[in-house]
Amino acid sequence: MKKEVVNVIKIGGKSIDNEKALAQFIEAFSKIPGKKILVHGGGVLANQIGEKMGIESHFHEGRRITDDETLDLITMVYGGLVNRKTVTKLQAKNVNAIGLSGADGNLIKAHKRSVKEVDYGFAGDIDEINAAFLQSLLVQNLTPVICPVTHNGKGQLLNTNADTIAKDIACALQAYYEVNLWLCFDKKGVLLDVNDGNSIILKLNPASYAELLAKSLIHDGMKPKLENAFQALKSGVSKVRIGSAEDIDIAIKEENTGTFISA
Amino acid sequence: MKKEVVNVIKIGGKSIDNEKALAQFIEAFSKIPGKKILVHGGGVLANQIGEKMGIESHFHEGRRITDDETLDLITMVYGGLVNRKTVTKLQAKNVNAIGLSGADGNLIKAHKRSVKEVDYGFAGDIDEINAAFLQSLLVQNLTPVICPVTHNGKGQLLNTNADTIAKDIACALQAYYEVNLWLCFDKKGVLLDVNDGNSIILKLNPASYAELLAKSLIHDGMKPKLENAFQALKSGVSKVRIGSAEDIDIAIKEENTGTFISA
Repeated sequence: MKKEVVNVIKIGGKSIDNEKALAQFIEAFSKIPGKKILVHGGGVLANQIGEKMGIESHFHEGRRITDDETLDLITMVYGGLVNRKTVTKLQAKNVNAIGLSGADGNLIKAHKRSVKEVDYGFAGDIDEINAAFLQSLLVQNLTPVICPVTHNGKGQLLNTNADTIAKDIACALQAYYEVNLWLCFDKKGVLLDVNDGNSIILKLNPASYAELLAKSLIHDGMKPKLENAFQALKSGVSKVRIGSAEDIDIAIKEENTGTFISA
Repeated sequence: MKKEVVNVIKIGGKSIDNEKALAQFIEAFSKIPGKKILVHGGGVLANQIGEKMGIESHFHEGRRITDDETLDLITMVYGGLVNRKTVTKLQAKNVNAIGLSGADGNLIKAHKRSVKEVDYGFAGDIDEINAAFLQSLLVQNLTPVICPVTHNGKGQLLNTNADTIAKDIACALQAYYEVNLWLCFDKKGVLLDVNDGNSIILKLNPASYAELLAKSLIHDGMKPKLENAFQALKSGVSKVRIGSAEDIDIAIKEENTGTFISA
């Protein structure tokens, strides 16, 4: 029997921080038929609110250093404000959304990243996805909206990369569904030239990726996203695409936008 | 057939803001057998964080005036920080908790309180509890942890009194369960003399309440809590008690602490 399809969609900071962009995404997301999951990242909003509170943001190679007060900040802004607002806006579009952190229903267990050259603080690397719990929500036609905060099962919340959460969820859900993964951001796809928004690489496979990497044509910031994309594909996720969050409904229907990741 | 029992427990600000008090409550709550729901209020934490962000807190007769930025603050602090942390700590005690606002799964629909003498801003009065959704979680042995934020179904979050949420949930759940309601706060019960923590009124019924009211012996701050308690009882909630959050497990087991509200 053919498995039912679930679309796992990750959106990044710039689709979240901007009221207009978020409204457009919500409109598009609400039109996607069938089962779907939204994973949202953070953005500059936590930095802005942190600034007001006198909390400085620190990053190492694009990844946030999460000290105790930064973890509280992220839990408030992404786990609270952004997550609850997104759910509320989806409800207004008749999407029966439910906002979740990795602690809720023991959805995502992680461990604190071990300290090597850099101490990322309360950054979490994922150990386990509770796919059965997600499935129990999906069969009730609920739409999970997941924020980038996980837990270690011992009472500690952990800040976790949203691309990785989306990838691991896509992989784990294959036990029940045929899964498509959409890693969305503010560009139309993986760009050959970061300064040219239209230089989209239409298709990437491990060989062409290795070639572009060797020629230093892949932007550093894109590497983790692409690693996640290839890992998802390797684990059996049906389709993986990297592209824009706008018009995600049309992108899913026509499958001709963004960068298509293939084996 | 006798219905299964659900304990609906509301805790207030002072059990939440204080790390030690919260840890003690979490320990006690985790020991309560059977199905249970936690509704948490706010406390001074939002005021403290708001102060850091330059947001002033305004109250009228003990009720918060919720302007736009105050709503964001409450959504962050209670819907994010407090709710996610409480869930995480319960998970560490093997309670499969799930944090919810009224928007999640369309749990609590409310409307913005109409402006009479006072404009309470984005304060919500409850219209409807989605008891079927709560039941679907309880049968999965999930423990809902509910923050005092609801929605109007049109994309607007609303700040809502946690006592009233607990009361309305207790009333709505009677469709499925025998329900007990525990309205907990930082006192041992309803006090005859607010300055004497041991002057607990052991039992209150509508007649004795009216009598104390007539003699001005009920503290203003207690009136909304007591109104909720009597409404719950009138709607058929089996047992209603007002008391301390500490040792809630023993209180539930022995039922000899706090103020017992009876018909």
